[in-house]
Amino acid sequence: MKEETPQWSTEVFLAARPTKGIVPDEHFGVRRVSVPPASSLRPDEVIVQIFWASADPAMRGWISPSKRSYVPPVPLNAVMRAFCVGRTLTSASGVPRGALVSGSLGWRTVCVARVRSLTVAPALPAGVPASALLGVLGGTGLTAYFGLLRVGAPKRGDVVVVSAAAGATGGVVVQIAKRVLGCRVVGIAGGEAKCEYVRDALGADACLDYRAGDLKRRLREAVGEKGADVYFDNVGGQVLEAALAVIRDGARVVLCGAISAYNNPGAPGPRNYVALIARRARMQGFIVTDFKEEFAEATRELAGWVGEGKIGVRQDVVEGIENAPKALVRLFEGRNIGKVVIRVHPDENSFSSSVDGIRISKL
Amino acid sequence: MKEETPQWSTEVFLAARPTKGIVPDEHFGVRRVSVPPASSLRPDEVIVQIFWASADPAMRGWISPSKRSYVPPVPLNAVMRAFCVGRTLTSASGVPRGALVSGSLGWRTVCVARVRSLTVAPALPAGVPASALLGVLGGTGLTAYFGLLRVGAPKRGDVVVVSAAAGATGGVVVQIAKRVLGCRVVGIAGGEAKCEYVRDALGADACLDYRAGDLKRRLREAVGEKGADVYFDNVGGQVLEAALAVIRDGARVVLCGAISAYNNPGAPGPRNYVALIARRARMQGFIVTDFKEEFAEATRELAGWVGEGKIGVRQDVVEGIENAPKALVRLFEGRNIGKVVIRVHPDENSFSSSVDGIRISKL
Repeated sequence: MKEETPQWSTEVFLAARPTKGIVPDEHFGVRRVSVPPASSLRPDEVIVQIFWASADPAMRGWISPSKRSYVPPVPLNAVMRAFCVGRTLTSASGVPRGALVSGSLGWRTVCVARVRSLTVAPALPAGVPASALLGVLGGTGLTAYFGLLRVGAPKRGDVVVVSAAAGATGGVVVQIAKRVLGCRVVGIAGGEAKCEYVRDALGADACLDYRAGDLKRRLREAVGEKGADVYFDNVGGQVLEAALAVIRDGARVVLCGAISAYNNPGAPGPRNYVALIARRARMQGFIVTDFKEEFAEATRELAGWVGEGKIGVRQDVVEGIENAPKALVRLFEGRNIGKVVIRVHPDENSFSSSVDGIRISKL
Repeated sequence: MKEETPQWSTEVFLAARPTKGIVPDEHFGVRRVSVPPASSLRPDEVIVQIFWASADPAMRGWISPSKRSYVPPVPLNAVMRAFCVGRTLTSASGVPRGALVSGSLGWRTVCVARVRSLTVAPALPAGVPASALLGVLGGTGLTAYFGLLRVGAPKRGDVVVVSAAAGATGGVVVQIAKRVLGCRVVGIAGGEAKCEYVRDALGADACLDYRAGDLKRRLREAVGEKGADVYFDNVGGQVLEAALAVIRDGARVVLCGAISAYNNPGAPGPRNYVALIARRARMQGFIVTDFKEEFAEATRELAGWVGEGKIGVRQDVVEGIENAPKALVRLFEGRNIGKVVIRVHPDENSFSSSVDGIRISKL
């Protein structure tokens, strides 16, 4: 709380737009810039020391050459857009010095931010690290919350299928569906280690390794005769096709993401999308920010479930802002279990294990 | 009304299941069967002289080898399932002799039907032929009605894009959207003759020939900056892709059919389905029979619009029940303008023109 304002900020900027896979050294650069003195700030600005920064699949769309997205692209040479958690090093009207805040602050260590672009963090449930504001209590938690409850809208006893079930969003979907709503939940993930996590830690009734072959047949067995009521899709591609093959009448396919296609824009769409006709089903996309009026209330509800031990997601921690592009590659290679966060600056936190040099905490 | 009951019925049966295109002589057969004497009928049965039989794209699904559809497949050697209009040649409780009736009676000239499987036709608006009970006042009209009003749900001033706009269903969608709801309507059809019909007879603001190249660019121009609110899809394939590229935020894509894919089950799905995410849009299928409780009321409303001259669709008449399989091929080759009907038996009707030996009536 009594830190000095650093003189320099290290920032990661967009150097080139990837057309396929991301190559950290090619598409991003790192530079040091000076932090302006506090005396030069406008009355509505504060300096924020960033502790945690996020890496999310949606970033792929923000840096691609295609024009049409739901947010403006990140300009070349600009700091990479990213959601962050930090503490204020100065004060302004409405925000004291030392406040824990979150906002779209970018991949950097220190920044000047307008007060209105920041959210002062709510009280965190006991034992929950501030980095959860990027995960289960942040964008990915809210994405899971609104995508599942508003777009998928399952009822108790419904069969809910979730892809990328070991990921940041999918993991929360699994737990809300299972432990809050009382659905039967079938996860899909890449590799047995992830599947074990989805079953054992997150509580899914079943989890299938999509790499193990013949996913459609195994999914049909796991889902059962009546078929899936809701499919929450984070990946697209062949996993989406397999899920469309097992939906039941009136099913809702929630399109949250398509990580399998982000680096491969020419990938074929789901050949069996016409199943939506025979099954009178809908496939619907959403953008979490459309629900922003309800974020505060949803975050309170999510925090309540975290406090009751119903939901929580592992964190997959990459050290150092200069490694942020590698964190993104890690996501696209499917190597993470849980939420990928970048530790920008030491903060109170507890880590329970370490895998591949990546420190992993269990919420 | 005073016809004798014929001794024989000519019927078209399913001889083999097509895996790709339909070959009439290979996949269908024609046979004569004797009509049972009236004295042998059960009390709830009548004999119906069929006047008009339908040919519809959905038939492709009923005869394909794949198991999972929304209705049971037509068994091999069974009479081909088809909606028909005819007159009763006998009476039974609830249906007098000489009543105009419709129902799923099959591709044949005469049949024995249970009374509960028949609908006694409502009074037709002046000048409207009985064959309209297969089109604008029958299955295709109802499909257009519920698909557009319930699934697409456009408001006045919305931009509605319709594919196969010169077809039986698309044509009704165009007219309801334009003349009843007051939307801006952009049709898509194959060939300039169809486009002219869609603009001049059906009243679309614009109609694009999908065969003329660069559909995506032309569609974007026709739709305008704000994009399409509703896309009513009858065809799938590249036309669906072009439409997904121009939808606006919150758009509804109504999946009614996918005629481009029915004979080509391995066809790729829409590569750009992820547009549904960025545009917070939904793509939804439906089956018209799910609305059957509301058929009577919808038919009254459709008949009112027909009577006011707001809606009406050309008929593309194929002569003789033995030519019914060719009528189906005609549909899949996209050679029809308007509703394809098979004239099984002479009936009061008026025809205004003749194209390719196909008699065409303008409703």
